[in-house]
Amino acid sequence: MHFYKYHGLGNDFVLVDTRRQELPVAGEDLSALGRLVCDRHFGIGADGLVLLRPVDGADIQMQIINSDGSEPEMCGNGIRCAAKYLYEHGGLRQDEMRIATLAGIMRPRLIRQNGRVQAVRVDMGEPRLERTDIPMTGPPGRVVDEPLALNGGSFRVTAVSMGNPHCLIFTAHVDRVPLTELGPKLENHPAFPRKTNVEFIEVLNRGEVRMRVWERGAGPTLACGTGACAAAVGGALNGLTERTVKVHLPGGTLDIQWAEDNHVYMTGPAAEVFAGEYTGRPV
Amino acid sequence: MHFYKYHGLGNDFVLVDTRRQELPVAGEDLSALGRLVCDRHFGIGADGLVLLRPVDGADIQMQIINSDGSEPEMCGNGIRCAAKYLYEHGGLRQDEMRIATLAGIMRPRLIRQNGRVQAVRVDMGEPRLERTDIPMTGPPGRVVDEPLALNGGSFRVTAVSMGNPHCLIFTAHVDRVPLTELGPKLENHPAFPRKTNVEFIEVLNRGEVRMRVWERGAGPTLACGTGACAAAVGGALNGLTERTVKVHLPGGTLDIQWAEDNHVYMTGPAAEVFAGEYTGRPV
Repeated sequence: MHFYKYHGLGNDFVLVDTRRQELPVAGEDLSALGRLVCDRHFGIGADGLVLLRPVDGADIQMQIINSDGSEPEMCGNGIRCAAKYLYEHGGLRQDEMRIATLAGIMRPRLIRQNGRVQAVRVDMGEPRLERTDIPMTGPPGRVVDEPLALNGGSFRVTAVSMGNPHCLIFTAHVDRVPLTELGPKLENHPAFPRKTNVEFIEVLNRGEVRMRVWERGAGPTLACGTGACAAAVGGALNGLTERTVKVHLPGGTLDIQWAEDNHVYMTGPAAEVFAGEYTGRPV
Repeated sequence: MHFYKYHGLGNDFVLVDTRRQELPVAGEDLSALGRLVCDRHFGIGADGLVLLRPVDGADIQMQIINSDGSEPEMCGNGIRCAAKYLYEHGGLRQDEMRIATLAGIMRPRLIRQNGRVQAVRVDMGEPRLERTDIPMTGPPGRVVDEPLALNGGSFRVTAVSMGNPHCLIFTAHVDRVPLTELGPKLENHPAFPRKTNVEFIEVLNRGEVRMRVWERGAGPTLACGTGACAAAVGGALNGLTERTVKVHLPGGTLDIQWAEDNHVYMTGPAAEVFAGEYTGRPV
């Protein structure tokens, strides 16, 4: 199986272009293929496996399988990697492409220099704020700075869906947060019937935040694109930031704009690391 | 840069054959190349980088750079991977090869089936037991079941060099050992002037042990070949095991024999996972 390895801010993906080859498995075994390929000692090693397929109504379809075998609706870092790959190796020589995901059709726009893709701006669509759209249990309305019971205490949370659920917690010292302890508890909290991503956010000023992420199905990652978008939306909803925000993550920085058209635009880098031929054990 | 990715019991290596290409760096920058290549998010991802070079007096030279940029004398899992690669892709079609390492010339022997390498038996040489050969500070003699002060308490340790230093601690319940807490403290203990690998070992019966490893410069790994050899020697020295021992590690099992000729023979698997072309950022 031929593949490319990319990362966006250290959030890393094995990309397989199914237009060029048959996958060694089908159907439900994709979950097993994702776990096998993403294993960092026995496989290729990645946060996720990205499968690119032909599709009607868009230029390409992007399917993601996380390292635990689960399938997220969308991934902001993954789609920048996919867009760069599609332009540089995948035959899509256009500055804007339509990529079909489980969260709808995304339209990444390339920022190029000397024929190379320097960064990718992605229209991440409109945030969904209604509780039932997160989805989150409870009465109708938005979830902004609302208490969530945990461990006998409570956190003040803001909930934003960017196609996938995000539970945002603003905090004074993001480095002091026990992420690996709180992350799985919040991810699996009964208030989130489809589980949730978890973001801890420290506001540096009205245009800049620092953030640490616990990704649903993946654990602590160096960066989460949809999480950065959710953070900008949540910062504005709470009156803590403007609508254009630099989000500093452990793996690097993303520029997020919650524009007047209500869409969220994310701009950030993607990098190719290697291309290879998988010869390891089959699923 | 073209490379192969192999693992031995999950202890994984990027192999680069310098007979076939120039390395992108030289001299001291090899340390930086190792760190870059071994990084699991921004690089290829591995416990170590294995460089294969032509050499006088042996079939090949194997140089290892750990993920932290340090250079170990030898690596038992790495040499099995190198031997399998050399037979299957590297033009050495012989069942026994001489591989030069910083710990001397090693002679891996292939165990083949249908033209494929199933396992590799490695003569790991003679253990060195004199304290000054470990090296370890203190008076002349062997270090067998001797107290070592740490954290105001003390551990009973046995010290064995297999070309690299090993600090062995026999324990009743290996799963309960706080490896990530004790590992770095013992690795950097002042009694070991060149630092040390650390092994916690539970004796199951006189022919079988379970072991967890803290590798010098690499942290907790799924398996450590020289550590398994040291464990068998240490078990016999303490009268806890016979001289032929199955060593169960988190990544799998190695068969170790401390033979009558005083050499230690290790037999275990090696597996190719993928081959690729590194296109990421230069050192």
